[in-house]
Amino acid sequence: MRRVQGWIEANLDRHINRLQRLVRVPSISPTGQQMAEGAETTAQLLREIGCQVVEIVPTSGFPVVFGEWQAGQPYTLVIYAEYDVMPADEPAWKVKPFEAALVDEPGLGRVLMGRGARNQKGPLVSILNAVEALVALDGKPPVNLMFVFEGEEELGSRHLPEFVEKYADRLKRADAMLAPHTHMNRQGEGLLWAGSKGIIVMELEASGQKWGRGPVGADAHSCYKAFVDSPAWRLVQALATLVSPDGNRVLVDGFYDAVLAPSAQDDALLAAFQDRFNPDFLDMGITRHIEDVHGLELMRRFFYSPTLNINGLSGGYAGPGIKTLLPAAATAKLDLRYVPNQEASDLIAKLRGHLDRHGFPDVELRVLGQSDWSATPLTSPVVSAAMSAYRRMGREPQVWPRNPGSIPFWIFNRAPLNLPFASAGLGHAVRSHAPNEFIVVDGNAQVFGLAQFETSLAAILYEFAAASAHA
Amino acid sequence: MRRVQGWIEANLDRHINRLQRLVRVPSISPTGQQMAEGAETTAQLLREIGCQVVEIVPTSGFPVVFGEWQAGQPYTLVIYAEYDVMPADEPAWKVKPFEAALVDEPGLGRVLMGRGARNQKGPLVSILNAVEALVALDGKPPVNLMFVFEGEEELGSRHLPEFVEKYADRLKRADAMLAPHTHMNRQGEGLLWAGSKGIIVMELEASGQKWGRGPVGADAHSCYKAFVDSPAWRLVQALATLVSPDGNRVLVDGFYDAVLAPSAQDDALLAAFQDRFNPDFLDMGITRHIEDVHGLELMRRFFYSPTLNINGLSGGYAGPGIKTLLPAAATAKLDLRYVPNQEASDLIAKLRGHLDRHGFPDVELRVLGQSDWSATPLTSPVVSAAMSAYRRMGREPQVWPRNPGSIPFWIFNRAPLNLPFASAGLGHAVRSHAPNEFIVVDGNAQVFGLAQFETSLAAILYEFAAASAHA
Repeated sequence: MRRVQGWIEANLDRHINRLQRLVRVPSISPTGQQMAEGAETTAQLLREIGCQVVEIVPTSGFPVVFGEWQAGQPYTLVIYAEYDVMPADEPAWKVKPFEAALVDEPGLGRVLMGRGARNQKGPLVSILNAVEALVALDGKPPVNLMFVFEGEEELGSRHLPEFVEKYADRLKRADAMLAPHTHMNRQGEGLLWAGSKGIIVMELEASGQKWGRGPVGADAHSCYKAFVDSPAWRLVQALATLVSPDGNRVLVDGFYDAVLAPSAQDDALLAAFQDRFNPDFLDMGITRHIEDVHGLELMRRFFYSPTLNINGLSGGYAGPGIKTLLPAAATAKLDLRYVPNQEASDLIAKLRGHLDRHGFPDVELRVLGQSDWSATPLTSPVVSAAMSAYRRMGREPQVWPRNPGSIPFWIFNRAPLNLPFASAGLGHAVRSHAPNEFIVVDGNAQVFGLAQFETSLAAILYEFAAASAHA
Repeated sequence: MRRVQGWIEANLDRHINRLQRLVRVPSISPTGQQMAEGAETTAQLLREIGCQVVEIVPTSGFPVVFGEWQAGQPYTLVIYAEYDVMPADEPAWKVKPFEAALVDEPGLGRVLMGRGARNQKGPLVSILNAVEALVALDGKPPVNLMFVFEGEEELGSRHLPEFVEKYADRLKRADAMLAPHTHMNRQGEGLLWAGSKGIIVMELEASGQKWGRGPVGADAHSCYKAFVDSPAWRLVQALATLVSPDGNRVLVDGFYDAVLAPSAQDDALLAAFQDRFNPDFLDMGITRHIEDVHGLELMRRFFYSPTLNINGLSGGYAGPGIKTLLPAAATAKLDLRYVPNQEASDLIAKLRGHLDRHGFPDVELRVLGQSDWSATPLTSPVVSAAMSAYRRMGREPQVWPRNPGSIPFWIFNRAPLNLPFASAGLGHAVRSHAPNEFIVVDGNAQVFGLAQFETSLAAILYEFAAASAHA
């Protein structure tokens, strides 16, 4: 890959500038700001690297930028990323978040700091730069490419399925999907994901309105508790039935029935990087884990366990000091993370049934959002290609069977497309959705810079062509 | 009382103006606005009616206005009220809240509308006007008087005990306390209170910090629930142990031990006005009460039952939409209303012990505020005087053994003063702490106007002198 990396290094200033151009467009989907400009700039970058077909495809929400590069190759890869970002109004920014400044970061040399540098404009532009390099060197990419750059990832990809349905005939011709990402950690190790957990976000609400007891509509003075029921206590009692006293085992009948436990092979995969498994999140000041698990058992839970978590509690008065109310309603926001082969509709029905059977038919369960799980066999060419590419770049991959969060890979991985996929790339970047987000440009002996990141993406394309041919 | 009422009616414009002068001073204790002016105007009104000793007594907070009128009578009454008010920044005001405008209110004739008209400047000025009338007619009041007008009632009377301690020698010479209040409802019935419930307001907090499990300090991403404990679930489980599944019976050992159940005599008192017991609060859209109680049993619970209520729940994300957090802490604000002979310190110790025994020693219990109960025997001269005065004014009293809320009467009623007391007065006023607060000036056939309210207060003073002599 030295040849590719050499070409990229010779063109690095232009590559950096390309990323700066996209970061400088504040395409903030939660506020709707400059989304059209974000789509247009993304399309322009696709045209610049020579993509033959570039379309800005309207959806019921923000458009998808679609590109197609028919290179006459036997295999086809979908590249997925997003051009929308979160707002950047946190006061802690030390640069203007949409200026894409190059900043010296101790130990890492220059970094490009700005909203979207990591999530996801950095990876989006880097794969385009990598393709440009391959075309410059080889005349064409080693695989046919379809680019799907959506504008609603930060809104839960709510209209991406609409696009996929519309473009299903073309997308079905693909063999796999690649989601480029800065998967190198500060220790210089390379992760990759072959799936993600599913998530259902919901609200449980107890109210006088629905219950037929307690205050209706407006909160009452708390002295009336002497003869008026409390929806807040009702919510507490309903919630308490859902989990074990330690808050960790879900007590809903059949909740765990469809969970696929990790196989011996899965365990072996985890054991392979158990000693190196030390993501940033493990440094959260958490002194003891659930049941004091650690090592392999911690990893098994992280990757394979469904969870039911309280995101937030609300109802009545929560300000400073005192306000003696008997609240008319109380709400818990919950997220339920689920895994193969659990199904969302089945889990929601089981939760509803649990509440009904425990005497809480009036406690409302409202689904606020949902994203399905995804899963690719590790023997799939796109996964083995990413693993080979990492090794060619001198790094032994940490293969995460799935991302423990929720990522819209299911839209490609489940019906109707059923594409195998990998999320991969040896770049280093930090602080998604947070102040001073950056992607490394220079790097150091352990941590790759931007040229190596782009080279690793080029390597994945080469390896995918090769692995597909051998599969 | 026709003579007194005639004199008051002849002087009513001046009496109205006196109330307007005090309402026009925005002595808002929660913001500290014009509190010195409020105290000065109150002192000025005391001097105007001829009170011999008037002092503005500094405390660690806002001052108490103290007045003493040694009339050479055998009995002495403390008059308690406050000159501070709540803010009036609600947009729904239809007059300027500190202009004390006279407004026509359908069916009630003129009312004086403004912040404090009901709570508590109306009653404060009305008792001064009543005393003025008695002095004009009789040369002196029928009882010796001590006025205690505090400036921190809306702040929980936090420095009133400090004043009472300082003036204890003088105050102990009193035989009883009278808290003038607009106790006539819209049906023209007269209530009086001979006590109040106690209240403890507290917070329960579960946190990773105290627990040694779960996120510490900052919330974590909710995907870590797979191996990180949840303080929010812990709070839910701790709360759920405190009450019965219906949320109504407190399950803390010994919680009800010291509760004095209503005697047959108490029940008879309630039964006497059971058919007329229809306070505004019963029209809250509440369709069913706890255990479907009604009538006498509802009244027994309202006046005699301690309660444990959730004022509010908070923790994690409670805004619109979705934020998948694993909160580092969660909090419930609770109020515990208690009755004779329960004691606050004992109840707090029992709650703490309950949490400890149920495995929640880390769940913090923080007391945010407290106000003790008060209780006066209905045979006490000050209560029977108020009852007689009501009857002389043509109204059969509804004697509430206690106010079901919390009122700082305990500061006079419990040690060191141990004064019997009544809260009484046949005026009509509405909307404490709310927009368009008013006190009735004209009234109608059922509802007394300001002159009758003042007359009823004068009648209580006469009757107290008489009842004390017979006691």
